[in-house]
Amino acid sequence: MFRESHARSMLKALSWRVFGTVTTTGLVFLFTGQLVLSLTVGAVEFGSKLLLFWMHERIWDRLSWGKQRIPPAVVWFTGLSGSGKSTVAEWVADQLRRRGLPVERLDGDIVRQMFPTIGFTRQEREDHISRVGYLASRLESNGIFVIASFVSPYAAGRKLVRDTCRSFVEVYVATPLAECEKRDTKGLYARARRGEIANFTGVNDPYEPPQAPDVTIDTSRESLEESGRKVLDALGRVGRAS
Amino acid sequence: MFRESHARSMLKALSWRVFGTVTTTGLVFLFTGQLVLSLTVGAVEFGSKLLLFWMHERIWDRLSWGKQRIPPAVVWFTGLSGSGKSTVAEWVADQLRRRGLPVERLDGDIVRQMFPTIGFTRQEREDHISRVGYLASRLESNGIFVIASFVSPYAAGRKLVRDTCRSFVEVYVATPLAECEKRDTKGLYARARRGEIANFTGVNDPYEPPQAPDVTIDTSRESLEESGRKVLDALGRVGRAS
Repeated sequence: MFRESHARSMLKALSWRVFGTVTTTGLVFLFTGQLVLSLTVGAVEFGSKLLLFWMHERIWDRLSWGKQRIPPAVVWFTGLSGSGKSTVAEWVADQLRRRGLPVERLDGDIVRQMFPTIGFTRQEREDHISRVGYLASRLESNGIFVIASFVSPYAAGRKLVRDTCRSFVEVYVATPLAECEKRDTKGLYARARRGEIANFTGVNDPYEPPQAPDVTIDTSRESLEESGRKVLDALGRVGRAS
Repeated sequence: MFRESHARSMLKALSWRVFGTVTTTGLVFLFTGQLVLSLTVGAVEFGSKLLLFWMHERIWDRLSWGKQRIPPAVVWFTGLSGSGKSTVAEWVADQLRRRGLPVERLDGDIVRQMFPTIGFTRQEREDHISRVGYLASRLESNGIFVIASFVSPYAAGRKLVRDTCRSFVEVYVATPLAECEKRDTKGLYARARRGEIANFTGVNDPYEPPQAPDVTIDTSRESLEESGRKVLDALGRVGRAS
Protein backbone atom coordinates (compact mmCIF):
# COMPACT_ATOMS: atom_id res chain seq x y z
CA MET A 1 0.00 0.00 0.00
CA PHE A 2 1.51 3.28 -1.11
CA ARG A 3 0.41 6.75 -0.17
CA GLU A 4 1.71 9.96 -1.67
CA SER A 5 3.90 12.03 0.67
CA HIS A 6 3.09 15.73 1.13
CA ALA A 7 6.46 16.62 -0.40
CA ARG A 8 5.56 14.61 -3.48
CA SER A 9 2.20 16.39 -3.83
CA MET A 10 3.90 19.78 -3.50
CA LEU A 11 6.70 19.09 -5.96
CA LYS A 12 4.14 17.73 -8.40
CA ALA A 13 2.06 20.89 -8.02
CA LEU A 14 5.17 23.00 -8.71
CA SER A 15 6.21 20.97 -11.72
CA TRP A 16 2.69 21.24 -13.13
CA ARG A 17 2.67 25.02 -12.70
CA VAL A 18 5.61 25.33 -15.08
CA PHE A 19 3.39 23.92 -17.84
CA GLY A 20 0.18 25.47 -16.61
CA THR A 21 1.22 29.05 -16.01
CA VAL A 22 3.34 29.30 -19.16
CA THR A 23 0.29 28.16 -21.16
CA THR A 24 -2.10 30.57 -19.43
CA THR A 25 0.23 33.55 -19.78
CA GLY A 26 0.80 32.68 -23.43
CA LEU A 27 -2.93 32.35 -24.09
CA VAL A 28 -3.82 35.67 -22.47
CA PHE A 29 -1.04 37.39 -24.47
CA LEU A 30 -2.25 35.71 -27.66
CA PHE A 31 -5.79 37.03 -27.18
CA THR A 32 -5.00 40.50 -25.76
CA GLY A 33 -1.49 41.33 -27.02
CA GLN A 34 -0.85 42.97 -23.62
CA LEU A 35 2.34 41.70 -22.01
CA VAL A 36 1.87 43.26 -18.53
CA LEU A 37 -1.69 41.99 -18.25
CA SER A 38 -0.62 38.49 -19.34
CA LEU A 39 2.19 38.35 -16.80
CA THR A 40 -0.07 39.62 -14.01
CA VAL A 41 -2.70 36.96 -14.71
CA GLY A 42 0.09 34.38 -14.83
CA ALA A 43 1.51 35.51 -11.47
CA VAL A 44 -1.81 35.45 -9.63
CA GLU A 45 -2.68 32.13 -11.22
CA PHE A 46 0.66 30.69 -10.12
CA GLY A 47 -0.05 31.24 -6.44
CA SER A 48 -3.72 30.35 -6.36
CA LYS A 49 -3.44 27.21 -8.42
CA LEU A 50 -0.42 25.90 -6.57
CA LEU A 51 -2.65 25.56 -3.52
CA LEU A 52 -5.64 24.24 -5.48
CA PHE A 53 -3.52 21.64 -7.25
CA TRP A 54 -2.05 20.41 -4.00
CA MET A 55 -5.53 19.96 -2.52
CA HIS A 56 -6.70 18.20 -5.67
CA GLU A 57 -3.71 15.85 -5.47
CA ARG A 58 -4.44 14.95 -1.82
CA ILE A 59 -8.05 14.11 -2.63
CA TRP A 60 -7.08 11.82 -5.49
CA ASP A 61 -4.50 10.07 -3.34
CA ARG A 62 -7.36 8.80 -1.16
CA LEU A 63 -9.15 7.25 -4.16
CA SER A 64 -7.96 3.79 -5.15
CA TRP A 65 -9.86 3.73 -8.45
CA GLY A 66 -7.54 3.20 -11.41
CA LYS A 67 -4.51 2.25 -9.34
CA GLN A 68 -3.58 -0.96 -11.11
CA ARG A 69 -1.54 -3.69 -9.53
CA ILE A 70 1.04 -5.22 -11.85
CA PRO A 71 0.27 -8.95 -11.81
CA PRO A 72 3.21 -10.82 -10.23
CA ALA A 73 4.55 -14.30 -10.92
CA VAL A 74 6.45 -17.10 -9.22
CA VAL A 75 9.69 -17.89 -11.06
CA TRP A 76 10.90 -21.30 -9.96
CA PHE A 77 14.50 -22.36 -10.69
CA THR A 78 15.03 -26.14 -10.48
CA GLY A 79 18.29 -28.00 -11.12
CA LEU A 80 21.23 -29.81 -9.59
CA SER A 81 23.38 -28.43 -6.81
CA GLY A 82 25.99 -26.14 -8.41
CA SER A 83 24.01 -25.73 -11.64
CA GLY A 84 23.86 -21.94 -11.21
CA LYS A 85 20.25 -21.57 -9.99
CA SER A 86 20.95 -18.98 -7.30
CA THR A 87 23.27 -16.88 -9.46
CA VAL A 88 20.79 -16.54 -12.33
CA ALA A 89 17.87 -16.14 -9.90
CA GLU A 90 19.70 -13.26 -8.18
CA TRP A 91 20.37 -11.58 -11.54
CA VAL A 92 16.68 -11.85 -12.53
CA ALA A 93 15.52 -10.59 -9.11
CA ASP A 94 17.86 -7.64 -9.44
CA GLN A 95 16.50 -6.74 -12.88
CA LEU A 96 12.92 -6.79 -11.57
CA ARG A 97 13.88 -4.66 -8.55
CA ARG A 98 15.45 -2.11 -10.87
CA ARG A 99 12.08 -1.79 -12.59
CA GLY A 100 10.59 -0.90 -9.22
CA LEU A 101 8.77 -4.21 -8.80
CA PRO A 102 8.38 -5.85 -5.38
CA VAL A 103 10.52 -9.00 -5.27
CA GLU A 104 11.09 -11.73 -2.70
CA ARG A 105 13.97 -14.16 -3.15
CA LEU A 106 13.55 -17.65 -1.72
CA ASP A 107 16.67 -19.80 -1.83
CA GLY A 108 16.92 -23.45 -0.86
CA ASP A 109 20.14 -23.07 1.11
CA ILE A 110 18.91 -20.05 3.07
CA VAL A 111 15.48 -21.48 3.91
CA ARG A 112 17.06 -24.76 5.03
CA GLN A 113 19.48 -22.89 7.29
CA MET A 114 16.42 -21.48 9.06
CA PHE A 115 14.83 -24.92 9.46
CA PRO A 116 17.81 -27.24 10.02
CA THR A 117 15.67 -30.16 11.21
CA ILE A 118 14.28 -30.81 7.73
CA GLY A 119 15.93 -33.85 6.16
CA PHE A 120 16.48 -35.04 2.62
CA THR A 121 14.30 -38.14 2.34
CA ARG A 122 11.71 -38.08 -0.44
CA GLN A 123 8.90 -37.35 2.03
CA GLU A 124 10.81 -34.60 3.82
CA ARG A 125 11.83 -32.96 0.55
CA GLU A 126 8.25 -33.06 -0.71
CA ASP A 127 6.87 -31.61 2.55
CA HIS A 128 9.51 -28.89 2.44
CA ILE A 129 8.78 -27.92 -1.17
CA SER A 130 5.03 -27.87 -0.58
CA ARG A 131 5.53 -25.46 2.35
CA VAL A 132 7.80 -23.23 0.31
CA GLY A 133 5.20 -23.35 -2.47
CA TYR A 134 2.53 -22.21 -0.04
CA LEU A 135 4.76 -19.33 1.08
CA ALA A 136 5.37 -18.39 -2.57
CA SER A 137 1.66 -18.46 -3.38
CA ARG A 138 0.79 -16.22 -0.39
CA LEU A 139 3.40 -13.68 -1.49
CA GLU A 140 2.23 -13.86 -5.11
CA SER A 141 -1.41 -13.36 -4.15
CA ASN A 142 -0.30 -10.17 -2.36
CA GLY A 143 1.34 -8.73 -5.46
CA ILE A 144 4.94 -9.84 -4.81
CA PHE A 145 7.19 -11.39 -7.48
CA VAL A 146 8.79 -14.53 -6.04
CA ILE A 147 12.14 -15.70 -7.41
CA ALA A 148 12.73 -19.16 -5.94
CA SER A 149 15.78 -21.40 -6.38
CA PHE A 150 15.46 -24.94 -5.06
CA VAL A 151 16.94 -28.23 -6.27
CA SER A 152 13.32 -29.53 -6.12
CA PRO A 153 14.23 -32.82 -7.81
CA TYR A 154 10.76 -34.41 -7.97
CA ALA A 155 8.24 -33.61 -10.70
CA ALA A 156 5.30 -34.17 -8.33
CA GLY A 157 6.51 -31.51 -5.88
CA ARG A 158 7.05 -28.96 -8.63
CA LYS A 159 3.61 -29.72 -10.07
CA LEU A 160 2.09 -29.11 -6.63
CA VAL A 161 3.75 -25.68 -6.42
CA ARG A 162 2.63 -24.85 -9.98
CA ASP A 163 -0.96 -25.71 -9.03
CA THR A 164 -0.75 -23.54 -5.89
CA CYS A 165 0.43 -20.42 -7.72
CA ARG A 166 -1.47 -18.27 -10.20
CA SER A 167 1.34 -17.52 -12.61
CA PHE A 168 4.15 -20.04 -12.43
CA VAL A 169 7.29 -19.91 -14.58
CA GLU A 170 9.39 -23.07 -14.34
CA VAL A 171 13.05 -22.52 -15.17
CA TYR A 172 15.00 -25.72 -15.74
CA VAL A 173 18.69 -25.08 -15.05
CA ALA A 174 19.97 -27.91 -17.21
CA THR A 175 23.71 -27.54 -16.55
CA PRO A 176 25.10 -31.09 -16.97
CA LEU A 177 25.94 -33.12 -13.89
CA ALA A 178 29.60 -33.43 -14.96
CA GLU A 179 29.94 -29.63 -15.04
CA CYS A 180 28.17 -29.18 -11.68
CA GLU A 181 30.43 -31.81 -10.14
CA LYS A 182 33.51 -30.18 -11.66
CA ARG A 183 32.53 -26.81 -10.12
CA ASP A 184 31.54 -28.40 -6.77
CA THR A 185 31.44 -24.93 -5.21
CA LYS A 186 30.36 -26.23 -1.80
CA GLY A 187 32.43 -29.44 -1.85
CA LEU A 188 29.22 -31.46 -1.55
CA TYR A 189 29.74 -33.72 -4.57
CA ALA A 190 33.11 -34.89 -3.24
CA ARG A 191 31.54 -35.66 0.13
CA ALA A 192 28.57 -37.44 -1.48
CA ARG A 193 30.93 -39.56 -3.64
CA ARG A 194 32.83 -40.54 -0.48
CA GLY A 195 29.48 -41.70 0.93
CA GLU A 196 29.35 -38.96 3.56
CA ILE A 197 26.02 -37.54 2.36
CA ALA A 198 22.97 -39.72 1.80
CA ASN A 199 20.18 -38.79 -0.63
CA PHE A 200 22.35 -36.34 -2.57
CA THR A 201 20.61 -35.41 -5.82
CA GLY A 202 22.54 -36.55 -8.89
CA VAL A 203 24.80 -38.89 -6.93
CA ASN A 204 22.64 -41.18 -4.81
CA ASP A 205 19.20 -39.63 -5.30
CA PRO A 206 17.36 -39.09 -8.59
CA TYR A 207 16.66 -35.80 -10.36
CA GLU A 208 13.51 -35.85 -12.46
CA PRO A 209 14.02 -33.27 -15.25
CA PRO A 210 11.00 -31.08 -16.09
CA GLN A 211 9.07 -32.43 -19.08
CA ALA A 212 7.78 -29.04 -20.25
CA PRO A 213 9.69 -26.23 -18.53
CA ASP A 214 8.83 -22.65 -19.47
CA VAL A 215 12.52 -21.87 -19.88
CA THR A 216 15.62 -24.07 -20.13
CA ILE A 217 19.02 -22.58 -19.39
CA ASP A 218 22.50 -24.11 -19.26
CA THR A 219 25.06 -22.04 -17.43
CA SER A 220 27.93 -24.11 -18.87
CA ARG A 221 27.13 -22.83 -22.37
CA GLU A 222 25.52 -19.41 -21.78
CA SER A 223 26.67 -16.26 -20.08
CA LEU A 224 24.84 -15.12 -16.95
CA GLU A 225 23.13 -12.40 -18.91
CA GLU A 226 22.08 -14.77 -21.73
CA SER A 227 20.46 -17.11 -19.21
CA GLY A 228 18.84 -14.25 -17.33
CA ARG A 229 17.42 -12.65 -20.49
CA LYS A 230 15.72 -15.93 -21.43
CA VAL A 231 13.92 -15.88 -18.08
CA LEU A 232 12.89 -12.22 -18.43
CA ASP A 233 11.60 -12.98 -21.95
CA ALA A 234 9.48 -15.82 -20.58
CA LEU A 235 8.10 -13.50 -17.89
CA GLY A 236 7.18 -11.06 -20.65
CA ARG A 237 5.45 -13.83 -22.65
CA VAL A 238 3.11 -14.65 -19.79
CA GLY A 239 2.18 -10.96 -19.83
CA ARG A 240 4.17 -9.88 -16.80
CA ALA A 241 6.87 -7.50 -15.69
CA SER A 242 8.33 -6.30 -18.97
CA MET B 1 3.26 -2.31 -6.96
CA PHE B 2 0.58 -0.03 -8.29
CA ARG B 3 0.54 1.86 -11.55
CA GLU B 4 -2.01 4.46 -12.57
CA SER B 5 -4.40 3.36 -15.33
CA HIS B 6 -4.87 5.63 -18.36
CA ALA B 7 -8.53 6.08 -17.45
CA ARG B 8 -7.47 7.32 -13.99
CA SER B 9 -5.02 9.83 -15.50
CA MET B 10 -7.70 11.13 -17.86
CA LEU B 11 -10.44 11.43 -15.26
CA LYS B 12 -7.97 13.19 -12.96
CA ALA B 13 -7.06 15.61 -15.76
CA LEU B 14 -10.77 16.34 -16.30
CA SER B 15 -11.49 16.82 -12.61
CA TRP B 16 -8.53 19.18 -12.33
CA ARG B 17 -9.76 21.25 -15.29
CA VAL B 18 -12.95 22.10 -13.42
CA PHE B 19 -10.83 23.91 -10.82
CA GLY B 20 -8.21 25.13 -13.26
CA THR B 21 -10.31 26.59 -16.03
CA VAL B 22 -12.82 28.24 -13.70
CA THR B 23 -9.90 29.97 -11.96
CA THR B 24 -8.26 31.07 -15.20
CA THR B 25 -11.49 32.39 -16.71
CA GLY B 26 -12.26 34.22 -13.47
CA LEU B 27 -8.78 35.76 -13.33
CA VAL B 28 -8.86 37.00 -16.91
CA PHE B 29 -12.32 38.51 -16.32
CA LEU B 30 -11.10 40.13 -13.10
CA PHE B 31 -8.21 41.84 -14.88
CA THR B 32 -9.91 42.73 -18.19
CA GLY B 33 -13.64 42.93 -17.39
CA GLN B 34 -14.28 41.34 -20.80
CA LEU B 35 -16.58 38.31 -20.58
CA VAL B 36 -16.17 37.01 -24.15
CA LEU B 37 -12.39 37.24 -23.98
CA SER B 38 -12.34 35.46 -20.62
CA LEU B 39 -14.52 32.61 -21.87
CA THR B 40 -12.43 32.24 -25.04
CA VAL B 41 -9.19 31.99 -23.08
CA GLY B 42 -10.93 29.47 -20.77
CA ALA B 43 -12.13 27.32 -23.67
CA VAL B 44 -8.75 27.17 -25.43
CA GLU B 45 -7.05 26.52 -22.11
CA PHE B 46 -9.47 23.68 -21.36
CA GLY B 47 -8.45 21.69 -24.43
CA SER B 48 -4.73 22.37 -24.42
CA LYS B 49 -4.21 21.75 -20.73
CA LEU B 50 -6.27 18.58 -20.64
CA LEU B 51 -3.63 17.01 -22.87
CA LEU B 52 -0.72 18.60 -21.00
CA PHE B 53 -2.04 17.47 -17.64
CA TRP B 54 -2.49 13.92 -18.84
CA MET B 55 1.12 13.80 -20.07
CA HIS B 56 2.32 15.31 -16.80
CA GLU B 57 0.40 12.67 -14.85
CA ARG B 58 1.92 9.81 -16.88
CA ILE B 59 5.44 11.11 -16.27
CA TRP B 60 4.90 11.33 -12.50
CA ASP B 61 3.45 7.84 -12.40
CA ARG B 62 6.87 6.53 -13.49
CA LEU B 63 8.62 8.26 -10.56
CA SER B 64 8.57 6.40 -7.28
CA TRP B 65 9.86 9.36 -5.22
CA GLY B 66 7.43 10.29 -2.45
CA LYS B 67 5.28 7.16 -2.75
CA GLN B 68 5.27 6.07 0.88
CA ARG B 69 4.59 2.54 1.98
CA ILE B 70 2.38 2.31 5.05
CA PRO B 71 4.40 0.19 7.51
CA PRO B 72 2.58 -3.09 8.14
CA ALA B 73 2.44 -5.27 11.25
CA VAL B 74 1.94 -8.87 12.27
CA VAL B 75 -1.08 -9.23 14.59
CA TRP B 76 -0.84 -12.57 16.37
CA PHE B 77 -3.91 -13.99 18.15
CA THR B 78 -3.07 -16.70 20.70
CA GLY B 79 -5.52 -18.57 22.94
CA LEU B 80 -7.37 -21.81 23.55
CA SER B 81 -9.43 -23.61 20.94
CA GLY B 82 -12.88 -22.01 20.88
CA SER B 83 -11.70 -18.79 22.56
CA GLY B 84 -12.80 -16.66 19.60
CA LYS B 85 -9.41 -16.01 17.95
CA SER B 86 -10.55 -16.51 14.35
CA THR B 87 -13.75 -14.50 14.75
CA VAL B 88 -12.02 -11.41 16.16
CA ALA B 89 -9.09 -11.82 13.74
CA GLU B 90 -11.52 -11.87 10.81
CA TRP B 91 -13.22 -8.70 12.09
CA VAL B 92 -9.89 -6.89 12.43
CA ALA B 93 -8.72 -8.07 8.97
CA ASP B 94 -11.97 -6.81 7.50
CA GLN B 95 -11.54 -3.37 9.09
CA LEU B 96 -8.02 -3.05 7.69
CA ARG B 97 -9.17 -4.16 4.22
CA ARG B 98 -11.88 -1.49 4.29
CA ARG B 99 -9.14 1.08 4.78
CA GLY B 100 -7.56 -0.18 1.59
CA LEU B 101 -4.67 -1.90 3.35
CA PRO B 102 -3.20 -5.17 2.03
CA VAL B 103 -4.06 -7.97 4.46
CA GLU B 104 -3.25 -11.68 4.64
CA ARG B 105 -5.13 -13.90 7.07
CA LEU B 106 -3.31 -16.94 8.43
CA ASP B 107 -5.45 -19.31 10.45
CA GLY B 108 -4.27 -22.36 12.35
CA ASP B 109 -7.08 -24.63 11.19
CA ILE B 110 -6.70 -23.67 7.54
CA VAL B 111 -2.90 -23.94 7.43
CA ARG B 112 -3.04 -27.33 9.15
CA GLN B 113 -5.61 -28.56 6.63
CA MET B 114 -3.00 -27.85 3.96
CA PHE B 115 -0.28 -29.74 5.82
CA PRO B 116 -2.14 -32.61 7.49
CA THR B 117 1.03 -34.53 8.36
CA ILE B 118 2.03 -32.03 11.06
CA GLY B 119 1.33 -33.42 14.51
CA PHE B 120 0.69 -31.89 17.92
CA THR B 121 3.76 -32.89 19.94
CA ARG B 122 5.70 -30.02 21.46
CA GLN B 123 8.44 -30.27 18.82
CA GLU B 124 5.98 -30.46 15.93
CA ARG B 125 3.96 -27.52 17.25
CA GLU B 126 7.13 -25.43 17.66
CA ASP B 127 8.38 -26.32 14.16
CA HIS B 128 4.98 -25.46 12.74
CA ILE B 129 4.76 -22.09 14.48
CA SER B 130 8.30 -21.15 13.49
CA ARG B 131 7.45 -21.84 9.83
CA VAL B 132 4.26 -19.84 10.04
CA GLY B 133 6.29 -17.06 11.70
CA TYR B 134 8.73 -17.09 8.79
CA LEU B 135 5.83 -16.84 6.32
CA ALA B 136 4.38 -13.93 8.34
CA SER B 137 7.73 -12.11 8.40
CA ARG B 138 8.19 -12.48 4.61
CA LEU B 139 4.72 -11.04 4.03
CA GLU B 140 5.33 -8.21 6.50
CA SER B 141 8.65 -7.28 4.93
CA ASN B 142 6.79 -6.93 1.63
CA GLY B 143 4.30 -4.45 3.06
CA ILE B 144 1.46 -6.86 3.89
CA PHE B 145 -0.49 -6.77 7.18
CA VAL B 146 -0.65 -10.30 8.60
CA ILE B 147 -3.55 -11.26 10.86
CA ALA B 148 -2.67 -14.66 12.33
CA SER B 149 -4.77 -16.82 14.64
CA PHE B 150 -3.03 -19.86 16.13
CA VAL B 151 -3.45 -21.60 19.50
CA SER B 152 0.38 -21.28 19.75
CA PRO B 153 0.42 -22.47 23.38
CA TYR B 154 4.16 -22.13 24.09
CA ALA B 155 5.79 -18.85 25.05
CA ALA B 156 9.07 -19.82 23.37
CA GLY B 157 7.41 -20.28 19.97
CA ARG B 158 5.59 -16.96 20.19
CA LYS B 159 8.83 -15.24 21.22
CA LEU B 160 10.53 -16.70 18.17
CA VAL B 161 7.84 -15.28 15.89
CA ARG B 162 8.06 -11.89 17.64
CA ASP B 163 11.82 -11.83 17.03
CA THR B 164 11.34 -12.72 13.35
CA CYS B 165 8.89 -9.90 12.64
CA ARG B 166 9.52 -6.16 12.60
CA SER B 167 6.29 -4.99 14.18
CA PHE B 168 4.59 -7.69 16.23
CA VAL B 169 1.32 -7.22 18.12
CA GLU B 170 0.51 -10.10 20.45
CA VAL B 171 -3.20 -10.47 21.19
CA TYR B 172 -3.98 -12.78 24.08
CA VAL B 173 -7.50 -14.15 23.72
CA ALA B 174 -8.05 -14.88 27.40
CA THR B 175 -11.51 -16.41 27.22
CA PRO B 176 -11.62 -18.85 30.20
CA LEU B 177 -11.25 -22.58 29.56
CA ALA B 178 -14.68 -23.31 31.06
CA GLU B 179 -16.32 -20.98 28.53
CA CYS B 180 -14.32 -22.42 25.59
CA GLU B 181 -15.26 -25.93 26.66
CA LYS B 182 -18.93 -24.95 27.03
CA ARG B 183 -18.94 -23.56 23.49
CA ASP B 184 -16.97 -26.52 22.08
CA THR B 185 -17.84 -25.39 18.55
CA LYS B 186 -15.88 -28.20 16.91
CA GLY B 187 -16.68 -30.90 19.47
CA LEU B 188 -12.97 -31.24 20.21
CA TYR B 189 -13.11 -30.76 24.00
CA ALA B 190 -15.63 -33.59 24.34
CA ARG B 191 -13.38 -35.86 22.29
CA ALA B 192 -10.28 -34.82 24.23
CA ARG B 193 -12.03 -35.48 27.56
CA ARG B 194 -12.96 -38.95 26.28
CA GLY B 195 -9.25 -39.46 25.62
CA GLU B 196 -9.69 -39.57 21.85
CA ILE B 197 -7.30 -36.66 21.22
CA ALA B 198 -3.80 -36.56 22.69
CA ASN B 199 -1.91 -33.29 23.34
CA PHE B 200 -5.06 -31.18 23.31
CA THR B 201 -4.27 -27.72 24.69
CA GLY B 202 -6.14 -26.99 27.94
CA VAL B 203 -7.11 -30.62 28.52
CA ASN B 204 -4.01 -32.77 28.32
CA ASP B 205 -1.43 -30.27 27.08
CA PRO B 206 -0.42 -26.98 28.73
CA TYR B 207 -1.19 -23.43 27.59
CA GLU B 208 1.43 -20.89 28.64
CA PRO B 209 -0.36 -17.51 28.89
CA PRO B 210 1.54 -14.49 27.50
CA GLN B 211 3.34 -12.57 30.25
CA ALA B 212 3.18 -9.18 28.54
CA PRO B 213 0.69 -9.28 25.65
CA ASP B 214 0.10 -6.07 23.69
CA VAL B 215 -3.65 -6.61 23.97
CA THR B 216 -5.79 -8.90 26.12
CA ILE B 217 -9.34 -9.68 25.09
CA ASP B 218 -12.00 -11.96 26.55
CA THR B 219 -14.84 -12.84 24.20
CA SER B 220 -16.97 -14.15 27.07
CA ARG B 221 -17.20 -10.61 28.52
CA GLU B 222 -16.82 -8.31 25.50
CA SER B 223 -18.73 -7.94 22.26
CA LEU B 224 -16.97 -8.75 19.01
CA GLU B 225 -16.63 -5.06 18.24
CA GLU B 226 -15.26 -4.22 21.71
CA SER B 227 -12.56 -6.88 21.34
CA GLY B 228 -11.78 -5.82 17.79
CA ARG B 229 -11.50 -2.12 18.68
CA LYS B 230 -8.93 -2.92 21.37
CA VAL B 231 -6.78 -4.59 18.73
CA LEU B 232 -7.16 -1.69 16.29
CA ASP B 233 -6.24 0.74 19.07
CA ALA B 234 -3.08 -1.25 19.81
CA LEU B 235 -2.21 -1.19 16.11
CA GLY B 236 -2.60 2.57 16.22
CA ARG B 237 -0.33 2.83 19.27
CA VAL B 238 2.55 1.14 17.47
CA GLY B 239 2.14 3.82 14.81
CA ARG B 240 0.36 1.71 12.25
CA ALA B 241 -2.79 1.46 10.22
CA SER B 242 -5.09 3.91 11.95
